[in-house]
Amino acid sequence: MSTLFLRTLREDPADAEVPSHRLLVRAGYVRRVAPGIYSWLPLGLKVLNRVATVIREEMDAMGAQEVQFPALLPREPYEATGRWTEYGPNIFRLKDRKGGDYLLGPTHEELFTLMVKSEYSSYKDLPVSLYQIQEKYRDEARPRAGILRGREFLMKDSYSFDLDDEGLKRSYEAHRAAYVKVFDRLGMDYRVVSAVSGAMGGSASEEFLAVAPTGEDSFVSCTTCDYAANVEAVEVRPASASTTEHPPLEVLDTPDTPTIETLVDLLRSKGHEVTAADALKNVVVMLRYPDGRTEPLVVGIPGDREVDHKRLEANLVPAEVLAFEGEDFAKHPGLVRGYIGPQGDLGVRYLVDPLVANGSAWVTGANVEGRHAVNVVMGRDFTPDGTIAAAEVRDGDPCPRCGSALSLGRGIEIGHVFQLGRKYADAFSLDVLGPDSKPIRVTMGSYGIGVSRAVAAIAEQSHDDKGLVWPRAVAPADVHVVIAGRGEQDEVGVSLAESLEAAGLRVLLDDRGGSPGVAFKDAELIGVPTVVVVGKALADGNVEVRDRRTGTARAVPVGDAVAEIVREVRS
Amino acid sequence: MSTLFLRTLREDPADAEVPSHRLLVRAGYVRRVAPGIYSWLPLGLKVLNRVATVIREEMDAMGAQEVQFPALLPREPYEATGRWTEYGPNIFRLKDRKGGDYLLGPTHEELFTLMVKSEYSSYKDLPVSLYQIQEKYRDEARPRAGILRGREFLMKDSYSFDLDDEGLKRSYEAHRAAYVKVFDRLGMDYRVVSAVSGAMGGSASEEFLAVAPTGEDSFVSCTTCDYAANVEAVEVRPASASTTEHPPLEVLDTPDTPTIETLVDLLRSKGHEVTAADALKNVVVMLRYPDGRTEPLVVGIPGDREVDHKRLEANLVPAEVLAFEGEDFAKHPGLVRGYIGPQGDLGVRYLVDPLVANGSAWVTGANVEGRHAVNVVMGRDFTPDGTIAAAEVRDGDPCPRCGSALSLGRGIEIGHVFQLGRKYADAFSLDVLGPDSKPIRVTMGSYGIGVSRAVAAIAEQSHDDKGLVWPRAVAPADVHVVIAGRGEQDEVGVSLAESLEAAGLRVLLDDRGGSPGVAFKDAELIGVPTVVVVGKALADGNVEVRDRRTGTARAVPVGDAVAEIVREVRS
Repeated sequence: MSTLFLRTLREDPADAEVPSHRLLVRAGYVRRVAPGIYSWLPLGLKVLNRVATVIREEMDAMGAQEVQFPALLPREPYEATGRWTEYGPNIFRLKDRKGGDYLLGPTHEELFTLMVKSEYSSYKDLPVSLYQIQEKYRDEARPRAGILRGREFLMKDSYSFDLDDEGLKRSYEAHRAAYVKVFDRLGMDYRVVSAVSGAMGGSASEEFLAVAPTGEDSFVSCTTCDYAANVEAVEVRPASASTTEHPPLEVLDTPDTPTIETLVDLLRSKGHEVTAADALKNVVVMLRYPDGRTEPLVVGIPGDREVDHKRLEANLVPAEVLAFEGEDFAKHPGLVRGYIGPQGDLGVRYLVDPLVANGSAWVTGANVEGRHAVNVVMGRDFTPDGTIAAAEVRDGDPCPRCGSALSLGRGIEIGHVFQLGRKYADAFSLDVLGPDSKPIRVTMGSYGIGVSRAVAAIAEQSHDDKGLVWPRAVAPADVHVVIAGRGEQDEVGVSLAESLEAAGLRVLLDDRGGSPGVAFKDAELIGVPTVVVVGKALADGNVEVRDRRTGTARAVPVGDAVAEIVREVRS
Repeated sequence: MSTLFLRTLREDPADAEVPSHRLLVRAGYVRRVAPGIYSWLPLGLKVLNRVATVIREEMDAMGAQEVQFPALLPREPYEATGRWTEYGPNIFRLKDRKGGDYLLGPTHEELFTLMVKSEYSSYKDLPVSLYQIQEKYRDEARPRAGILRGREFLMKDSYSFDLDDEGLKRSYEAHRAAYVKVFDRLGMDYRVVSAVSGAMGGSASEEFLAVAPTGEDSFVSCTTCDYAANVEAVEVRPASASTTEHPPLEVLDTPDTPTIETLVDLLRSKGHEVTAADALKNVVVMLRYPDGRTEPLVVGIPGDREVDHKRLEANLVPAEVLAFEGEDFAKHPGLVRGYIGPQGDLGVRYLVDPLVANGSAWVTGANVEGRHAVNVVMGRDFTPDGTIAAAEVRDGDPCPRCGSALSLGRGIEIGHVFQLGRKYADAFSLDVLGPDSKPIRVTMGSYGIGVSRAVAAIAEQSHDDKGLVWPRAVAPADVHVVIAGRGEQDEVGVSLAESLEAAGLRVLLDDRGGSPGVAFKDAELIGVPTVVVVGKALADGNVEVRDRRTGTARAVPVGDAVAEIVREVRS
């Protein structure tokens, strides 16, 4: 450490909102260059490389083959699949000196498809799985949380190519199993949850979420069965009921009821036994498609829930969901702000959350300022244009599989496995000749792990108020030797570090000779799992072996130290 | 190989001009994605990684520390040093969604300087050397020769930071020594030659050139002393002479002398004992600066030499050298096309090559159509605005150090070591506090190795008409086992491959079971140094061990094969 390019910081960076960001900067692992763009200092690069190595080993073990594509890519293949447009402002585009259009690769489905098309031609060539570990680029609208959501980030992406759906399922399961091994080896607390497809198009898909309160993703897991899903993907089974048992629709004067609460209070004071859950809240949003086209949309959800913006947007891909502004209302006279009811002619598309079931009766707007309607029955008084999962999912909601209570949690997406199907093979006519010499359209899977994000996710899960606490598999060193004293301590410390290195351990030696208090604080901040202090105890022939995670310390005779530390690290 | 993602090609790619490009594509190592932009297939990636590993090991061994900067960089630091403009169209520029200016990093001097400035503050912190191995980007006007000159390429760049010139020299020598070790380990034939500074600004600089007839760089080496230089950097000592010994300037009618040869013939027929070497050829070019400004320039060189465009441009950095067009002549009446002489008022800047010495007499244009002047003496009849090394350097030219003959060669730039000095430290006020608490301006070196280019340079040096011939240090495998037969051959081949792997060798096993002829051709094309054929000789209990480089083959009893091959690979 007397020569290591490392300076720890006592103060949190001003822009750091989450522990991993705060600690990775303070402990000298990463430095910010621009929004969402970071440099890796020596210790950080060691952790990043260790994560990449674990991933590489498991990908190789499952038979995937490593290749490396460029990050700077021509427009044409992305034009062919529509992603050049669909990505909207989320990719970096540029022109070369001749005016040719290029992009910085966000993921490489197109290139892998073209590569397999150019090299392979027979059914005998398949299946094949290819992967790369490479810097990727996305122009995030809100880069945040340090390396958790960056604009340049290291990713492992792989793609499988199969002859049929059965083969795709096998490739998918092989990737899924490899991911389980990766995240187990990385010592992470994670959940595999059902996912929607996002911008990729396709069918079966699961996400690996590192459990963390700071995570951007919400997921549910059933308290009884093994159902787990990203909230964006939670299925809700609408409970259809008869439309005939309800009294007829009735319109009421409801002055001064700007909120669901005030409306419910007023109705209850008039003898209607309603709660917020009986109100049908109709939320207007504006959709903007990648080609710039916009379209208003009204979404009906139960009044005791909020719209989950992320869930709604995930189900409207590739459209962006924007606010519906005052001026937009002016252009749509069918939408009476605050009093929208689907029984009227809204003049725009109307979708309901699946919680709004056929045959259910609602209190909702009467499409007239100051008035609401009760006993508005879906299937009798109105018929929506379709359903869309838009309402927030809540702790305790019923499991769509077994009906037990769902438990809600937050996580960081660290992996994604995805049965793409034939979308890309169709775009590029990726066929191989079958045994009968007839062409077979290839089916694909795509699989990603956020390598740099995994570093941050591990830091989110492994820290305390003093600093980072790395799992052994990814720690920047196996043991951190602190020389806390001069003369004899210095000699013994250097010699101990050399012996530990000779025994095959990776050693971080604090030979700076400054204040022991500073050295201890830095050791806690940096987070190597085992810290060995060569200090006062040396008078009794001992060194102190500290466990960073538990905080426990014990005296070990100098002569036994190497053997004991090696045993501890290897255990 | 029955599952390896590899398809060799029988035909050369249409755009391949040099052996490395042709063979790396045919042998399935790389594939073109766009001009100057390539993907690495599994075998190619293995070679690339081995080259990177050798570099990393030697950089670590000399005490440099690895970090990783982003490739996507904000404009501001490059604006501060002027490189945003100076690079002209040679860098990729882009805007993010908010309109912010970014570039794809060509080299990272600015970022490393800022990093050291933000982390270090005391003289005790220095020296430090930092490096990264990273994809770099340059928008080459003429990307060519496959991965030899790409627009996205892998580079190791490092930077040293020292307190004083002595320290910089030590850091420079340490890098130079590490580079010698790297290129020796890579088994390359290379020369270390003096270099001009290029676009970087600064002083002492050497290039590592891989000797290859296809190289873009020309260099000289002295046949007697150890002087060696890129021709762009060759010093020429002008031999100054007296200006008084020559007869007076005389203007002659020289009709129909459009070339130096016809002029010399005419003059000789009139009794003037002149050769082409006595003619002063005045070449007009147009300079274009990065800011778009243009300026004409006339360069005088001896008539028996051509202008070396690359050398001239290297000495005019950051200007580009363009042709001077007919319409340009119309704007400069002082320049009489074909009859320019520096004794007239040209109205534009006039420089001479150092071969044009003070006191030397020349035949040159008389600034009048159809007339030339003889006995035009530099220092008497004209005085140039300065000198510039512009004339081609020739085999046999005198060594500037010892006067012996220079030998001319061609090479590929694979490494560059460079004493930058304080250019970047000045731009960012990179100071550290000295022992007396006064600031010390830091001095820097920058050092690069083209990692992907080294792969191509090795291929340029190591191939024959059948394919690639990799040096052991970088080969994609240690041994290539070809199963040339069914049944017993297949069993023995698989078992031999397993035993070789168990012995720690990296094995490429051709288990495709096709035609032995195709397998042998592929083995020659792929270029693993040792090829083991399990074929007909097995009837006698032998396998055949072939040396790819020499082409020699010998029979080895199956039982001895593992031990003997391990010995050969490890030798």
